[in-house]
Amino acid sequence: MAKISHVSPLAPAGGFPDLPPIAGVRFASVAAGVRYEDRPDVMLAEIAAGSAMAGVFTRSATRAAPVLWCEQNIAAATDWAADKGFAILVNSGNANAFTGAAGEDSTQRCAKAVATELDLPLRQVFLSSTGVIGERLPDDRITSQIATLAGTISDSGIAGAAAAIMTTDTFPKGAAEEVTLNGTTVTLTGIAKGSGMIAPDMATMLVYLFTDAAIARAVLQAVTSRVNARTFNCITVDSDTSTSDTLLIAATGRAAMAPITSEDDPRLAAFEAALERLMTRLAHLVVRDGEGATKFVEIRVTRADSDASAHRIGKTIAESPLVKTALAGEDPNWGRVVMAVGKAGEPADRDRLTIHFGNTLVAENGWVARTYREADAAAYMKQSDLIISVDLGIGAGAAKIWTCDLTHGYITINADYRS
Amino acid sequence: MAKISHVSPLAPAGGFPDLPPIAGVRFASVAAGVRYEDRPDVMLAEIAAGSAMAGVFTRSATRAAPVLWCEQNIAAATDWAADKGFAILVNSGNANAFTGAAGEDSTQRCAKAVATELDLPLRQVFLSSTGVIGERLPDDRITSQIATLAGTISDSGIAGAAAAIMTTDTFPKGAAEEVTLNGTTVTLTGIAKGSGMIAPDMATMLVYLFTDAAIARAVLQAVTSRVNARTFNCITVDSDTSTSDTLLIAATGRAAMAPITSEDDPRLAAFEAALERLMTRLAHLVVRDGEGATKFVEIRVTRADSDASAHRIGKTIAESPLVKTALAGEDPNWGRVVMAVGKAGEPADRDRLTIHFGNTLVAENGWVARTYREADAAAYMKQSDLIISVDLGIGAGAAKIWTCDLTHGYITINADYRS
Repeated sequence: MAKISHVSPLAPAGGFPDLPPIAGVRFASVAAGVRYEDRPDVMLAEIAAGSAMAGVFTRSATRAAPVLWCEQNIAAATDWAADKGFAILVNSGNANAFTGAAGEDSTQRCAKAVATELDLPLRQVFLSSTGVIGERLPDDRITSQIATLAGTISDSGIAGAAAAIMTTDTFPKGAAEEVTLNGTTVTLTGIAKGSGMIAPDMATMLVYLFTDAAIARAVLQAVTSRVNARTFNCITVDSDTSTSDTLLIAATGRAAMAPITSEDDPRLAAFEAALERLMTRLAHLVVRDGEGATKFVEIRVTRADSDASAHRIGKTIAESPLVKTALAGEDPNWGRVVMAVGKAGEPADRDRLTIHFGNTLVAENGWVARTYREADAAAYMKQSDLIISVDLGIGAGAAKIWTCDLTHGYITINADYRS
Repeated sequence: MAKISHVSPLAPAGGFPDLPPIAGVRFASVAAGVRYEDRPDVMLAEIAAGSAMAGVFTRSATRAAPVLWCEQNIAAATDWAADKGFAILVNSGNANAFTGAAGEDSTQRCAKAVATELDLPLRQVFLSSTGVIGERLPDDRITSQIATLAGTISDSGIAGAAAAIMTTDTFPKGAAEEVTLNGTTVTLTGIAKGSGMIAPDMATMLVYLFTDAAIARAVLQAVTSRVNARTFNCITVDSDTSTSDTLLIAATGRAAMAPITSEDDPRLAAFEAALERLMTRLAHLVVRDGEGATKFVEIRVTRADSDASAHRIGKTIAESPLVKTALAGEDPNWGRVVMAVGKAGEPADRDRLTIHFGNTLVAENGWVARTYREADAAAYMKQSDLIISVDLGIGAGAAKIWTCDLTHGYITINADYRS
């Protein structure tokens, strides 16, 4: 298998951050040889009894066996044993996707091995797999490592876990946030993997979030879904949707606070804001490790017909191959932005559009701006972090979308190697 | 400006075909220097009195001034003077798109120059422009050539016209069909330009069709819209939609036949079939000149929930960057086809999907086929013309979509040069 030896030019400086432990959460990782040699490829997270779990999953019609498993677990929430905890088992190298009934058998065996080892109900074990589609998961390589994982589990294992879930990501991704709720400081941490690829099929986004906040399951699910719509659902690398995308969040309730059990709790707004900061940072890290990316781009859409319309216009701009190649070429090609607005199928009026590249006013009143100098915009496009603002001038809808450019690197990663 | 000197590897052998003249249609072309040096860049078609005209246009919300002009002409159909003919004036090099009120003034001046020279009502002059977005059209360079064009117009000028409408297409595109209606042989010809690009923004599809059939305008419009949905609306190079896409058809009625004035006319089916053959061939030629294309790919979707669902699934497969890069890599990567089916947002059942690459059964029953040998599929993928068949197994809907691969050539054309 081909290897990419370099780290994304958009990776944050300083490497993986020093994440604080979350009371009630422990991690282990191991090199099980699922597909890769000589690197950790399985991680186990153990979450203490009394925690709340929530999740968000890909809506793909061909989603993988572990995703279906997790969805069933979430649906079974009222049957969860309150005096038992949870576990999350993740392997890289094989997605266990489009593997028919055999794939479902593999998920059963993996979950059973963890449930037995950690004394958990079967439905309180969550699973993710990421890697090749269509090959049988060699689950014996995973189940044979569960005892080893349980024996080495620790509250400082999150960095190893972040590395074990990587496929061809060029750097591990993690972040933390703190927020004070009525005098109690609550911590949130998270790890994610993105869509770095070399061996084809290995695109999946996996996100695991942990907090010691006390928050009821239903409220946790609602707030996570809301924040997900404003963060991970607003990023796009290449418009393709994995069969395995999974986001799980565990709230252990170990912080010294009365639980948040209602949407009306005045502490929820601060918690939601902290969760949004955390999820935004992780979502940006996924884009910064986009395949072949050399530019990190924020698309700001304002005064659209509605928020949903703004989101679709932003996504259309961010996913346009012609816009993305112009970004790669450092070309302030605003004509392609106009084209993308036009094709989005949303309300727009050519003569009310205003476009900025950074602070440079590019187009307004249906034509290039009188003050526009191509040299200004061309100089701006040389930066690695870019903002393109599109004001529709017709309503109150707004959205932000984050994306990267489309480069020779993307083609090299996805076309030049055979699986 | 950078130049591509090679012709697409998917271009048909034998060059531009020898197209038969259509009674009542004459062509001229000239090098007006709109943007390009030393090549024809303006074409004029003159269509005799008594002809019927119909058209189909981009639905972009930011469509160009000449497109809006043509739409208004079509809407004014009942005001057309029956004793006068029509004209089509097309320039390459500048799209007259996103040029505000100045763009509308340019279309007025161009139409007026043609109307005066050929003694036509203003609204019987159709216009197209293709090229750079956002720059003022130097319409004086065009209007100063109208007398020259009118003076050199001839019934054998269609090859020159096909060349004049090219932007960075690598070959001119034309085709012809004959069909016998109740003993009368009717001829159809057409020219098209596609989405070859070097200088950014120059993607537009323009199609002009001509026939000596006698057919009433309303029937011609209906049949053209229907066939367009099965032909040009089924091709995709890179999912981006031009601000200028235009298809016009003229029926001169010079063939010895009573006019077709109703959808119930028994001759209409044969005419529609001939028109579909012509439009399919031209649509395929546009794909064969797709930017950087090295593969011509037919996506066949069958047994989907509906025809519309099949169309959306086919488009999603054809526009997936991961599928397109796998095609470029000659990689029989059926997992990416499964992914694309899943993300289409249409009804699908993983366990009922059947996928073929050519005649090779790849996947069925929710998993790779027992008979599948990767070597067979890999050998097939080396062909330049490929068929990928996806059977959903849940309904009666079907569609065919035609596309090309996504290569380094596409990135080079669209990212490596500055406008």
